[in-house]
Amino acid sequence: MKLEEDDMTVEKLESLGDQIIEQIKNGENPHFEKPVRSRSNVEFDETEGVLTLGDSTSKRYFMNIGQARSFMQTILIAQKCKELIQEGRTASVRELYYQLKHTIPGLDENTLEDQEESDPVIVDLETALDSLREQLHLIAEPKGRLFGPITIEDQGDEVNCLELGKSGLGVPSIVDDYEFLEHDADYVLVVETAGMVNRLVEEGYHKEHNAIILSSGGQPSRGVRRLTNLLHNELDLPVYIFTDGDPWGYYIYSVLKAGSMNLAFESTRLSTPDANLIGMTIEDIDEYDLQGVTEKLKGKAPDQKGGPTGDYKRAKDMMEYEWFQHKEWQKQLQDMIDRGVRIEQQALASKKFEFVAETYLPEKIERSNFLP
Amino acid sequence: MKLEEDDMTVEKLESLGDQIIEQIKNGENPHFEKPVRSRSNVEFDETEGVLTLGDSTSKRYFMNIGQARSFMQTILIAQKCKELIQEGRTASVRELYYQLKHTIPGLDENTLEDQEESDPVIVDLETALDSLREQLHLIAEPKGRLFGPITIEDQGDEVNCLELGKSGLGVPSIVDDYEFLEHDADYVLVVETAGMVNRLVEEGYHKEHNAIILSSGGQPSRGVRRLTNLLHNELDLPVYIFTDGDPWGYYIYSVLKAGSMNLAFESTRLSTPDANLIGMTIEDIDEYDLQGVTEKLKGKAPDQKGGPTGDYKRAKDMMEYEWFQHKEWQKQLQDMIDRGVRIEQQALASKKFEFVAETYLPEKIERSNFLP
Repeated sequence: MKLEEDDMTVEKLESLGDQIIEQIKNGENPHFEKPVRSRSNVEFDETEGVLTLGDSTSKRYFMNIGQARSFMQTILIAQKCKELIQEGRTASVRELYYQLKHTIPGLDENTLEDQEESDPVIVDLETALDSLREQLHLIAEPKGRLFGPITIEDQGDEVNCLELGKSGLGVPSIVDDYEFLEHDADYVLVVETAGMVNRLVEEGYHKEHNAIILSSGGQPSRGVRRLTNLLHNELDLPVYIFTDGDPWGYYIYSVLKAGSMNLAFESTRLSTPDANLIGMTIEDIDEYDLQGVTEKLKGKAPDQKGGPTGDYKRAKDMMEYEWFQHKEWQKQLQDMIDRGVRIEQQALASKKFEFVAETYLPEKIERSNFLP
Repeated sequence: MKLEEDDMTVEKLESLGDQIIEQIKNGENPHFEKPVRSRSNVEFDETEGVLTLGDSTSKRYFMNIGQARSFMQTILIAQKCKELIQEGRTASVRELYYQLKHTIPGLDENTLEDQEESDPVIVDLETALDSLREQLHLIAEPKGRLFGPITIEDQGDEVNCLELGKSGLGVPSIVDDYEFLEHDADYVLVVETAGMVNRLVEEGYHKEHNAIILSSGGQPSRGVRRLTNLLHNELDLPVYIFTDGDPWGYYIYSVLKAGSMNLAFESTRLSTPDANLIGMTIEDIDEYDLQGVTEKLKGKAPDQKGGPTGDYKRAKDMMEYEWFQHKEWQKQLQDMIDRGVRIEQQALASKKFEFVAETYLPEKIERSNFLP
């Protein structure tokens, strides 16, 4: 985290504490307020283009048999997060759990029984303070790699990401403290599969096309989502998402672009509404002569008995998403359902290995042939 | 791959081809020989300390209704791998599948129907040629990160792994072409969880203790296994494995040390028989006062009705492994079963976050307190 952001988060934590002390002094039942996280309170923000939480809030009280325990846990976690920030440390949610687990003196009761108790309380705190867990110095499982013409300062080290061979930089859980020192990039390309990243790096695509390649390795980690957002917002770089042409790939796109229902409160920082899908599209099948290497959708089509299920159902559901209401997306998803096929990005290897780097991606970008 | 190794693999591929041409010229039924991979042919090699395949072999014939298709596929894959090596390319097994999938001219038959057909044929080729898939230029899913005082040449780039902040180097699938240019390391520490790696890097453990830290992120990838082997064999560095003290953690250790049943033919290159377990051990629970943060083993204990199941069964099974016949390991696993508990590496955070870096690991190493 950058220092000013750390200061802001500590201020929020302290003001939560002050507020509770004030309530105690005034003889009130100590409590704090947090947004309701159920789906009924998830909205699509048209202006921002992301999923957000609505205005419904709920209160958690100390003097309430059903809430006293989680109230205590929230305060414990808030206090430990403040400590982490002030010490300049980060911790996994597992470490946090172990640090806070102890038997309360004088009681035969543990502060926490298992991590299933602490994890939701962390989310409560995130929403109550409007701070991501990364801002509270809590880390998630890291995943993903970065390659390309950008020099990043990370913990005082200056890393030129064009000089990391085929290994690349491991994208950590927390990237807010990255300083982008200089870059020569024209765009960011987020790629679903590690196999495709290997292909592009091996073909020197990142060097030849001044592309920052981010490997998402399936559903992107929080680190990759935040880094995509930062690269776009701080460096004003276009973001192209390159996934398989199937409901799972499009869902990855959807999460990167607009956020997810469950974590709607994080969308503004973790999503990139301006991102576009570069492929694979259903039109690609005919455009690039890939009819022989499509795969069948799994499940039952809408017109089959008991349908739609499986991939068909996911595609149908996605047609309802507010950010997929563009006619291009409706056509895309309908075409997929009608043809009953999916097309993977690695299927481009059926032409020749270098086809994706020499023809497919450059053509798409030159023609600005993207999905919104 | 290094060039001399590439040459050797191409030679093996060509000699397979030559042999088949010779058979055809002689009017023989074209065939090749490969080791039997079933468990009956898996042996523990006492001298090397790894699982290997025994001497049983089987033959695959072209003129055999049950084998003709996979014979054809083997030749196709062999030919494509030779092409990959000669072009200096690598490919994912998914790309390979797509490259080779086509309708055979004049027949209404595809070379490959799905990847489930090509994957086992790749393993056949690996065993027949005694070449790892990495030597055939086929990549697996990459996972893992590296931090520490070593400079690696990767594709012409010189990467100082001490200057990669908290991000680290992404360990690729193929590491055989890494050149270790210089290093100042005293040992290699392979760590099970990403959370623990974050802790150690944040505490500057790799810098202060001249340690190369490899993050395995659960069951280690092939890249991490091979890299551990190479760092040990080429640089003569001791290897310490740091896992949770539970059957899963010990299985990770077992695979890193001696290989796995399913991939016994790869043990010599992917395993490190000299590796030791640094922790967590069951004795650590008392030694470091961790009684309050153990977790219960899952499943039924051996003395319960229907037991052992779950964790207990895994621990019992492991007691039978030939490389766990040391009395320390027998005691370790028996203690775990008797106490019915497991202890995670992140449980050390219950002391304080920095405890693992300042006390636990340095003490263990100073006292050479390892499991064999």
